[in-house]
Amino acid sequence: MIIIGELLNSTRREVKDAIEKRDVEFVKDLAKKQVEAGAHYLDVNAGAFVDDEAEHLLWLMDTVQAVVEVPLAIDSADPEVIEKALAVHKGKAMINSITAEKEKLEAIVPLIRKYQAKVIALCMDDSGMPNTAEDRLKVVEKFHDVFTKEGIPMEDVFLDPLVKPVSVNSSFGNEVLVALEEINNRYKGVHTTCGLSNISFGLPQRKVLNQAFFVMCVARGMDSVIIDPLDPKIMSLLYASEVLVDRDPRCANYLKAVRRGVVQG
Amino acid sequence: MIIIGELLNSTRREVKDAIEKRDVEFVKDLAKKQVEAGAHYLDVNAGAFVDDEAEHLLWLMDTVQAVVEVPLAIDSADPEVIEKALAVHKGKAMINSITAEKEKLEAIVPLIRKYQAKVIALCMDDSGMPNTAEDRLKVVEKFHDVFTKEGIPMEDVFLDPLVKPVSVNSSFGNEVLVALEEINNRYKGVHTTCGLSNISFGLPQRKVLNQAFFVMCVARGMDSVIIDPLDPKIMSLLYASEVLVDRDPRCANYLKAVRRGVVQG
Repeated sequence: MIIIGELLNSTRREVKDAIEKRDVEFVKDLAKKQVEAGAHYLDVNAGAFVDDEAEHLLWLMDTVQAVVEVPLAIDSADPEVIEKALAVHKGKAMINSITAEKEKLEAIVPLIRKYQAKVIALCMDDSGMPNTAEDRLKVVEKFHDVFTKEGIPMEDVFLDPLVKPVSVNSSFGNEVLVALEEINNRYKGVHTTCGLSNISFGLPQRKVLNQAFFVMCVARGMDSVIIDPLDPKIMSLLYASEVLVDRDPRCANYLKAVRRGVVQG
Repeated sequence: MIIIGELLNSTRREVKDAIEKRDVEFVKDLAKKQVEAGAHYLDVNAGAFVDDEAEHLLWLMDTVQAVVEVPLAIDSADPEVIEKALAVHKGKAMINSITAEKEKLEAIVPLIRKYQAKVIALCMDDSGMPNTAEDRLKVVEKFHDVFTKEGIPMEDVFLDPLVKPVSVNSSFGNEVLVALEEINNRYKGVHTTCGLSNISFGLPQRKVLNQAFFVMCVARGMDSVIIDPLDPKIMSLLYASEVLVDRDPRCANYLKAVRRGVVQG
């Protein structure tokens, strides 16, 4: 499972404060802890700073990359900010995320190619947010066509089916699960990922819904996830799920995690 | 989700002691608590008493049925004990469980018919324990043929694919999941169920493996489960999972469980 640690996000109050105050220790600590807990990428977001996002993001990236080796997932909606971030990133960066909206795609694809970045591709296009699995697969096809034409390898693409709240429509969980399975059947080598928490929007006790949905996604072949790697329950379920769907030979990762004391029943 | 409460089982030391001492209050309390927590059936097992199983089981059943209304799942390997239990059971009983081994099937099927009992049918026959999904589906076909011939409605049948430890073979989780999905596709009206805990046999921190596997089974259409309904974590995942696979209209059961305080993140 490819883990993208989500904590260095300026929409979280304490992170925003730390960025604003240039609190190097706070940022370094949160970066190190996520990597020690198993994160393979760290999401970095300074989108809360509307007027000077790039400046804050570059400081954040610089601070993080001074202390950990993992690549970063550059989390911005602004192509100019993304380009500035890609230019200073050490190693092969990830972009989190792009949609298949024509204008946005045209702005970002050259950057993906130029910097040979990985990219989270969100199943959404100019026709709006998807409802069904079929809606999502149409967007995936569009991504596939563009990326293939532009020489971007599908191995660098992380397809995110775009999770919508089950409180809005009770079929929204199932549709994502079907989409994940179909994407994995149709596109060999591509990765699939999710921002989980939207599934539980509008309902109480959200964590348990996120946990159960995560397990279901893993069982449909999802091989990456954007989570808080310091959350012992989601990490426990991650290690357990990989054992159960035969993605952890000889339970090696599970047993290692148990020895580290991070697996909780 | 049809919940079969598993706690009144003489393989549990405190339950064995309570049966031996005829501790009416202990048994009544454990029965009531399971039903209050949502159990639709209560498993009753006195198999630890080798020489006088029937006597102990009948006392247990009588004590339980004096205090709760739910039917019981008669958990015995001995057809004579099962018949004695069926004869005194109030309402439509469940038998937990039968296999497709020829001799056993011939002994039990007349009882199922006579008492119009429900039955948990374990995917195992004279060729031994199943390994693959295909092995299991062959046994299910055998059950289906026998039951259909004998006029036993498939709506009274709870197929249990027979869970084996992933520590023995890393494919054993997947094979059960595929079997569950296929059974639900092929046999309309039949129920599917599992004793979960065998999945984690031989591994540490078993609970989290059982929890994750349970969620995966629900996502493949399993509509019944044999569990400890007093375990808040498994019950939380149960309510959450049903929301996620669109089996809880308007999240009504989930929200009710949250109000009762039993959902924990």
